[in-house]
Amino acid sequence: MDHLKSHIRDIPDFPKKGILFRDITPILKDPKVFDEVIGALRDRYAGMKIDKIFAVESRGFIFAAPLAREIGAGLIPLRKPGKLPYETMSVSYALEYGEERIEVHRDAIEKGERVLVLDDLLATGGTAAAAVELARKLGGEVVEAGFVIELASLGGREKLPDVPVYSVVSYD
Amino acid sequence: MDHLKSHIRDIPDFPKKGILFRDITPILKDPKVFDEVIGALRDRYAGMKIDKIFAVESRGFIFAAPLAREIGAGLIPLRKPGKLPYETMSVSYALEYGEERIEVHRDAIEKGERVLVLDDLLATGGTAAAAVELARKLGGEVVEAGFVIELASLGGREKLPDVPVYSVVSYD
Repeated sequence: MDHLKSHIRDIPDFPKKGILFRDITPILKDPKVFDEVIGALRDRYAGMKIDKIFAVESRGFIFAAPLAREIGAGLIPLRKPGKLPYETMSVSYALEYGEERIEVHRDAIEKGERVLVLDDLLATGGTAAAAVELARKLGGEVVEAGFVIELASLGGREKLPDVPVYSVVSYD
Repeated sequence: MDHLKSHIRDIPDFPKKGILFRDITPILKDPKVFDEVIGALRDRYAGMKIDKIFAVESRGFIFAAPLAREIGAGLIPLRKPGKLPYETMSVSYALEYGEERIEVHRDAIEKGERVLVLDDLLATGGTAAAAVELARKLGGEVVEAGFVIELASLGGREKLPDVPVYSVVSYD
């Protein structure tokens, strides 16, 4: 799906100097291109009997919500602390400086349900690893971690050693 | 669509004392119910020649992304300051204490395009009014502001005097 790269805009030095940001808003703006991305995810996951998609706030919601409908899975939002109103479970993970935390509702899944973790971007993998941990703590079976874009040089797959990883588009 | 209320969970005193929070995560978790909500939005908007959906971060993304695909519209994310990487335009609006600001990419729409503003919740209407203002500043024609849930007693419609307002579910 490398032709999709022509719809991903490179923004140098965002959010800070030295970072090359991959901007997906041109994908979203064009219904045909957005449809193609969701179609690629559907082709990948339609046969995998996914019960629930763990969608990482907030760009992950954009891809996970249409995909959930395509494959008949439930959509489970993972959010920053303090956003989910019911009983939550949370996991923290390291950032370059400091740490971050994501939460999920404790009643999100039933034991043994098959879970797909989905986000727009696989960078260093910290968020995805935390999402996998949350799913397992709740008794879920993590089938795969899926991404629209993978920045392979950042080694995110190494943070997910025991989970299959798929990305629609990968950059070296 | 009042039967959908059985899939909306009331959480007292969230995010602070005295607020009754309407939790939509039970809707998302059940593919049939989520499908019904998106279907209601599709039935409303399929014939309105919407070019772009202005989707408010972050729960708005969850409904706007599937709807955009259903009606063949482009999806335009509106985000908190500092999140969008390209050139932005922003509008600030008052909160109970202090103010908030949302941004959109300046290249989000072409002049004269028909815009639907979409969010999960219409409460006091500040965010939606700011979204309408952003769309107009960029030369868009705002066709309607749509919501999954409306808290009618908070008077959000008064902040949107010159825009049609639609909600799937309304609470007094």
